Amino acid sequence: MPSQELELLESHACFAGRMERYQHHSRQCRSPMRFSIFIPAHGADETLPVLTFLAGLTCNEETFMIKAGAQRYAAELGLILLAPDTSPRHTGIAGEDDEWDFGTGAGFYLDATAAPWDAHYRMFSYVTDELPALIARHFPVQGKAQGICGHSMGGHGALVCGLRKSGQYQSISAFAPVSAPSQTPWGQKAFSRYLGADTGQWQAYDSLALLQEKAGQSHPPILIDQGRADPFLEVELKTEYLEALNDPRLTLRWHDLYDHSYFFISSFVSDHLAFHARHLGAVRRLDPHHVR
Amino acid sequence: MPSQELELLESHACFAGRMERYQHHSRQCRSPMRFSIFIPAHGADETLPVLTFLAGLTCNEETFMIKAGAQRYAAELGLILLAPDTSPRHTGIAGEDDEWDFGTGAGFYLDATAAPWDAHYRMFSYVTDELPALIARHFPVQGKAQGICGHSMGGHGALVCGLRKSGQYQSISAFAPVSAPSQTPWGQKAFSRYLGADTGQWQAYDSLALLQEKAGQSHPPILIDQGRADPFLEVELKTEYLEALNDPRLTLRWHDLYDHSYFFISSFVSDHLAFHARHLGAVRRLDPHHVR
Repeated sequence: MPSQELELLESHACFAGRMERYQHHSRQCRSPMRFSIFIPAHGADETLPVLTFLAGLTCNEETFMIKAGAQRYAAELGLILLAPDTSPRHTGIAGEDDEWDFGTGAGFYLDATAAPWDAHYRMFSYVTDELPALIARHFPVQGKAQGICGHSMGGHGALVCGLRKSGQYQSISAFAPVSAPSQTPWGQKAFSRYLGADTGQWQAYDSLALLQEKAGQSHPPILIDQGRADPFLEVELKTEYLEALNDPRLTLRWHDLYDHSYFFISSFVSDHLAFHARHLGAVRRLDPHHVR
Repeated sequence: MPSQELELLESHACFAGRMERYQHHSRQCRSPMRFSIFIPAHGADETLPVLTFLAGLTCNEETFMIKAGAQRYAAELGLILLAPDTSPRHTGIAGEDDEWDFGTGAGFYLDATAAPWDAHYRMFSYVTDELPALIARHFPVQGKAQGICGHSMGGHGALVCGLRKSGQYQSISAFAPVSAPSQTPWGQKAFSRYLGADTGQWQAYDSLALLQEKAGQSHPPILIDQGRADPFLEVELKTEYLEALNDPRLTLRWHDLYDHSYFFISSFVSDHLAFHARHLGAVRRLDPHHVR
C-alpha cells in the first residue's frame, strides 16, 4: 500500500495476510519513525479492529512481530496488529544512544517536557494520536475499535495510553508491566530526565497513580499476565501494587516459573488477543483456509 | 538438566514446558557447539519423539526457536524440538568468518573432506550421530522416534540427513530447500571447498541425486513447502527439480505469494509438526492446561 506518506520497507505473506514494515516522517517526534503491521486476509470492503502492541526497553518495531507468534491468532480472530518503535531514533540529541535504558529504545511512551528531549520524544502523542490517524488513512481499520497491549516498559505504555485515552481504547492488556514507574529505578531515571524533577508531573504517566485516581470510576477492562520467575518483578515492575488495588475491572494472572522473555509472552499471547477481540467486536474468520 | 557434558546457557518456561539452550564440546567438530531444545510438559516417566530443525545460512541455534512460533504446536503434539547451530564456530580456521555463505553459519550439514575444513566441519555426523546420542543421554527421548526438518540450506540438510539415514528418521520435511546444490551457486561454492573438485563426491550430499538414486526404493515420507514469491527459488533452490521426480513419497506444496522468510515458515509450521507427529507416533497432550 505505497504512498508518499508511507515508505514500505518490507512485505511478506503471513497466515494468508500481509506482514509489512513502514517508515514515515513523524510530526510529533520530528524524526523518521518505523512501525510493523499485520493485516489479516479480509474482504474488499471489510474493516478490522486494531490492536497496538508496545514493546519494551531495547526493542524496536520488529520485536513483537518476530518473537511473539501472534499473527496466527490475529489471522484467526480478524485483528490488525500494529507495533510502533520504542522511541524516536537518530534525532541528533547528544547522548541519545549512550544508555540502554534511556533515550533510543527507551521512549517510555510519554511526551517529554524537559529539554533537550521535549523536541523529539513525544511517544504518547505519537502512539495515541498521530499513528492511529496515519493507520486509519492507509489500512482497512474499523472505526473506533482499538485495543492496546504491551510488555515491560510497553506494558506501562499500554496502561498509561489506555487509561488516559479511555474513550479511544476499548481494552488494555500487559505482560509484566512497569507498574509504578515513579517508584522504581528505570522509571525514575526516565521521568526525571524526560519530565523534570517535579514528581507531581510524573503521575500522569504512572499506572498505579492513574488507577488510584480512577478508583470507583469506569475504565477499559485490563488483562495483565505476570510471571513469578521474572527477574525484574521485585525491583522494576511492582506488579503486586496493581493487584493490591482490588480493581474489579483489572484481571491479574500470576504464572509460576515464567520469566520476562518473549517465550513467556508467546505462551499467553493467544489469551490477550482473544480478550481484545472480544471487547473490540472482532469477527472470527469463517474461512478456515485463512489460517493454516 | 545440568551435567559436566552440557553447559546450560539459558532456560525459560514456555507453553508449560521448558525452552533451553546449551553448549557442549563436540567430538566431531572439535569445537564448542550450541543447541536449543524445547521440551513439552511431560509425565515423570514419559518419553517423547524428537524433531530436529536445521536452519539456513547465517542463522544459528536460536533462529528457529525465536522466529517460527513452533513451540505451541510441539506442546500440543508432544514433540521435543531440537535446533543445532548451522556450523562449528571459532575453530581457528583462517577465513572462517569472512563470507556469509561459507564457513561460519554455512556448514551445509556435510562432513568436509578437504583441508582445512575437514578438521572441524563435520556437521553431518554431528547432526545425525553425536547430537542425537547426547540428547538421548540427557532428555526424555523416546527410543528411535526421530523426524528431521529444515529451511533453505537446512532444508537441504534435512533431506540429505533423512534420506541417507533413513533407518534413523521416520519423517522428513523442508521449507524452501536447496534441492540440487551440485547445480546451484551456494551449493557449488560450498561443495567445491568442503569436498573438493571431484563432483562425484558431491552427490552424497545432493538431495536431487539421492532421490534419483532411490527411485523405486522406499524412503521416509517427505513434506516440502515452497513459496512462489521466494527470491531464491529460481537460482538457488530449484525445488521444481524435486517435483519433476514424481516421487509418490514426496508431497510438495506450492504457495502463491509466500517468500523465503520465517513469516512463511511460521504460517505452515503447524502442518510440518503435525506431519512429523503422525509419523513419529507422538501422543497429543490430554491436559488442555498444558497449552494456553
